[in-house]
Amino acid sequence: MEYANSIVVNYRNNELATSEFRTHTCGGLRDSNAGEKIKLSGWVDAVRTFGPLTFVSLRDRHGTTQLVFSNDSKVSLEEANQLKPESVIRITGDVRERPSNMRNSNMATGDVEVVVDSLETLNTCAQLPLQVSTGSEVASEEIRLRHRYLDLRRASLQQNLVIRSKVSMTARNYLCDHGFLEIETPTLFKSTPEGAREFLVPTRTKNQFYALTQSPQQYKQLLMVGGLDRYFQLARCYRDEGGRADRQPEFTQIDLEMSFVEQSDIMGTIEGMVKKIWQVAGATIDLDKKFPIMSFDEAMSRYGVDKPDTRYGLEMRDVTQLMPQDVFQGVESVRAINAKKLGLNSFSRKDISELEALSKRLSVDGKGVFVVKVEEVANSLKNQTWKSSLAKKLSPEQLGSLNELLDVEAGDVILISSGSYSNVCTLLGRMRIQCAQQLYAKGFLQEELNPLNYNHLWVVDFPMFELDDDAKGLSATHHPFTAPQAQHLPKLLELLGSGHNAWEDAKMQDELLKIKAQHFDLVCNGWELGGGSIRIHSMDLQNAVLQQVLNLPEVQKKSFEHLLHALGHGAPPHGGMALGLDRLVAILCGAPSLRDVIAFPKSTTGNELMTGSPGPVTPEQLHEYHITVKEPKQ
Amino acid sequence: MEYANSIVVNYRNNELATSEFRTHTCGGLRDSNAGEKIKLSGWVDAVRTFGPLTFVSLRDRHGTTQLVFSNDSKVSLEEANQLKPESVIRITGDVRERPSNMRNSNMATGDVEVVVDSLETLNTCAQLPLQVSTGSEVASEEIRLRHRYLDLRRASLQQNLVIRSKVSMTARNYLCDHGFLEIETPTLFKSTPEGAREFLVPTRTKNQFYALTQSPQQYKQLLMVGGLDRYFQLARCYRDEGGRADRQPEFTQIDLEMSFVEQSDIMGTIEGMVKKIWQVAGATIDLDKKFPIMSFDEAMSRYGVDKPDTRYGLEMRDVTQLMPQDVFQGVESVRAINAKKLGLNSFSRKDISELEALSKRLSVDGKGVFVVKVEEVANSLKNQTWKSSLAKKLSPEQLGSLNELLDVEAGDVILISSGSYSNVCTLLGRMRIQCAQQLYAKGFLQEELNPLNYNHLWVVDFPMFELDDDAKGLSATHHPFTAPQAQHLPKLLELLGSGHNAWEDAKMQDELLKIKAQHFDLVCNGWELGGGSIRIHSMDLQNAVLQQVLNLPEVQKKSFEHLLHALGHGAPPHGGMALGLDRLVAILCGAPSLRDVIAFPKSTTGNELMTGSPGPVTPEQLHEYHITVKEPKQ
Repeated sequence: MEYANSIVVNYRNNELATSEFRTHTCGGLRDSNAGEKIKLSGWVDAVRTFGPLTFVSLRDRHGTTQLVFSNDSKVSLEEANQLKPESVIRITGDVRERPSNMRNSNMATGDVEVVVDSLETLNTCAQLPLQVSTGSEVASEEIRLRHRYLDLRRASLQQNLVIRSKVSMTARNYLCDHGFLEIETPTLFKSTPEGAREFLVPTRTKNQFYALTQSPQQYKQLLMVGGLDRYFQLARCYRDEGGRADRQPEFTQIDLEMSFVEQSDIMGTIEGMVKKIWQVAGATIDLDKKFPIMSFDEAMSRYGVDKPDTRYGLEMRDVTQLMPQDVFQGVESVRAINAKKLGLNSFSRKDISELEALSKRLSVDGKGVFVVKVEEVANSLKNQTWKSSLAKKLSPEQLGSLNELLDVEAGDVILISSGSYSNVCTLLGRMRIQCAQQLYAKGFLQEELNPLNYNHLWVVDFPMFELDDDAKGLSATHHPFTAPQAQHLPKLLELLGSGHNAWEDAKMQDELLKIKAQHFDLVCNGWELGGGSIRIHSMDLQNAVLQQVLNLPEVQKKSFEHLLHALGHGAPPHGGMALGLDRLVAILCGAPSLRDVIAFPKSTTGNELMTGSPGPVTPEQLHEYHITVKEPKQ
Repeated sequence: MEYANSIVVNYRNNELATSEFRTHTCGGLRDSNAGEKIKLSGWVDAVRTFGPLTFVSLRDRHGTTQLVFSNDSKVSLEEANQLKPESVIRITGDVRERPSNMRNSNMATGDVEVVVDSLETLNTCAQLPLQVSTGSEVASEEIRLRHRYLDLRRASLQQNLVIRSKVSMTARNYLCDHGFLEIETPTLFKSTPEGAREFLVPTRTKNQFYALTQSPQQYKQLLMVGGLDRYFQLARCYRDEGGRADRQPEFTQIDLEMSFVEQSDIMGTIEGMVKKIWQVAGATIDLDKKFPIMSFDEAMSRYGVDKPDTRYGLEMRDVTQLMPQDVFQGVESVRAINAKKLGLNSFSRKDISELEALSKRLSVDGKGVFVVKVEEVANSLKNQTWKSSLAKKLSPEQLGSLNELLDVEAGDVILISSGSYSNVCTLLGRMRIQCAQQLYAKGFLQEELNPLNYNHLWVVDFPMFELDDDAKGLSATHHPFTAPQAQHLPKLLELLGSGHNAWEDAKMQDELLKIKAQHFDLVCNGWELGGGSIRIHSMDLQNAVLQQVLNLPEVQKKSFEHLLHALGHGAPPHGGMALGLDRLVAILCGAPSLRDVIAFPKSTTGNELMTGSPGPVTPEQLHEYHITVKEPKQ
């Protein structure tokens, strides 16, 4: 595991000095301290004996210092040799420069060592269920989570938490410098039956429940109506999505909202903040280069996904016109990807079959891709040999055009998908990622896919509505408060002016699907860092969208009443964004899992192994909340 | 209502400028802008007509700007006159200096006005349920809470939220500068049956519940065991205490924990942070003067409370030896307060009776105080006339000593309480506050009790244990993790070494009550800002306290197992503190209620009137969480 940088908190040394326990931290001594009498406290990282000397590495969050004991020491060698790893000691001693051949340039304190003249054990350590010491093997995740207080002593986790703290503060200070107020909003909200599953919180009033907020969306819009102008919060949010990989039931988002702005104002603010975060974290970023902006349609067409990883190519091409008409008759779209070089260094018939099988599992309609390996080197591009029955059906001209369009060379692997445009794009988008991972495993794309190589990208021009999963009506692509793009507003108003309901009017529905929204996503390396939008600030428009387009259940419409009321009392034009902090930090640290950037994460099933949370409660507690646990059905 | 200050966010003006909506905020124009063409957006605060001119005050969070319309304007007077309060408009116009006799030095923009050349209504406003405009009457709290998005437009509330934001950022930046890491801890914890009532959160695993954290106490100690050295968090905490005045079910605390420190290190850090907060908020504080430190015993003896308001005197005096023995035979303690000047400007027999009746309600044992009014002015202090039957029982020497001890003058009112030392102190402590409020209402103590006059005070040397409410055993005065003072540790170890259980050994119990803890409270103006302590870092000592002193139910002991395990694996000496952010900001703002410093507060019954939270949920939701709402008993 590499880390983006090695941030050290810039405390002044004396800030951490406490009269009783330490004059310096374990990372603070330099050769300029030689000759000083100092006091340190920390954990015994390792004890090593070399001939007549014993060396003890003393560790804290700030570093490690070498302590030396000899027969001349005021503290006996025996006492030093008996020190157990992870016990806590306090020492006093004299700093001296190490002999020049003993200096360790990999350690900040590597030029010095401390000759100890007093040693006191502040706390002992029982037998360790996992190794903490630098460089020792990392235990299984279950053991680590169960003993998180030990796992947290490892430098890599501490480093992640240091970066996380820096990121939070950088975001906050940036936003405060730009006229934002940090405002806390409630997490005890009411249940609004929409979106992800909510955690419920019973109250002592019978049948009255709070629900934990999934996001401060409504509150932040109400703050804008309240004239607070610019709001932000590092907001704790809750979603009961147990079982989904690498999700946490509680997570944090950098949440903000701005009044009197257009989409570009919000994007500019966020871009500045993200660049500042990357910069402060010591990560590579070009501060002068604007993040590229790509439309949703282009992202789908080139990468088959609305959050493309643009660090590498393998882009999709439309090959519909180059395909034999008899084979692909009546097919809406045929598209292809050239997984460049995937066929090099052995790529057997079995690999092809596996790739095709994988594509069937990843496809929406069960129809996979067709995989072609390009085998022989030839002098001319047009003479590559496609090891495929398909090639036989292609004219030399078609084959030539395909080779040119897809930049085909020997050793390449071509993936072809046919069907509806939307399904083809989605499937090839997923296969593109799979191929990239396989290429990375084979030693290709090493630079591109280095976790610390970052490509930021804005994706814009999303459709305002999309078909419901059951295709019976429309739902909001992001949320019901997203405003339409200005040039689409007249059309939207015209459609709504008909008084029809979208779910009863197929033509209206088709037209509505063409309306683009003022929504924008920030993407980095194939992850969505966050999304934002300009909101609807007109009560009438918001009401029409809720009533005529979204076909919401009555209870849900009712839950928006106060928001409609607020919009009707002088809501300013406004919009905002939310960025997932956990994911952002994980990307920044190159951490493979969100659990590596959270101090006390829960498992995929929502359990915290260390404290045994969640757990049972007493009948008295349930009684107070007027609830009973249901008996299982017999 | 006065406010501590008038903080203005120091944004650079162009940071809030957005091409489409504004070049300046409504608080930004100065006479140096005269002649400029500008664009503003905001709310119509008021429309006034003077002869041929119409003035519109345009308002946003940053201030108010005067717009001028005349017959010469490009925008018709009629259009201006039709503007409704709280509608949202955008204007362009020219800045000009006001005539010298029209300047308003009470407004930041009072030297200029804007001659409008275009006006656009961005949003309308329906009939207002409450008045927002500056200086208008404040509606009832219920109306305000129901339409919080309008109430929030009032400058006083906005100012409070600005101060709150500043306070949070100041605390964070201060702590980061002192080597602290901001680390988020879970709020979904397990139920630990102790302390305040917890909110439960059912999970989709039957009979498994999360509980919302009451504080991050255990997590922050585990972070110290994890070697994170210094932690802080502005932590959201939850307590289900509905019905208690001015409490919120969710609240925020500035929470921190430090390793390798003594009590004085933590106090020094907090004191520095609090001074910085007061300074940044523009409140009066002497940065060079250390906060005074008072022992718990002294606080109880002088003020009858562990969080004394030291801005005024009215201190308690021990008068046991000066009382007639026949009246107070066998009484442990007689103590008195001189409510100086309370008898001036009419203080009738009825007032005395009411004060005595009040004291009965406030007393632990139903026994009130004895109230004496001192009536006639005389030449000698010793000759004040006590209007009381008690005076007749006192010898001239006793009366003289009392007059001297209590500094008695005509017009004073003496309150005398007798009984157990503890009850007497508690009752007189409560009566002291009541008398101070009565004096304030009479026009005395105006300077002392000004909400913006701040007295900070440390209270230390608390007992480690106290008698249970039912006096059958001991409980931890603060929490079971508080460490004993070093000089009391040997005694504590000796007592625990007996192997006895405190609740079965009356002598041991008495001795334990004398052990002082390393706990400290920060008090300001009679409010507890927060409390902290050095924690027990020895597993054996922590275990003995839990097992032999506190007599906890088995389930509760079990819930501490992981903490004991952690202490046994190299826990460093550590301690920390938590400050209530809501209360701190309320004190700083001179706000009468916590609801005035929270954007969306809940009512005393835990309801949020604006969104109608909490509310009912569907049977399907309950089904997923394996719970049912209990039927009422027939």
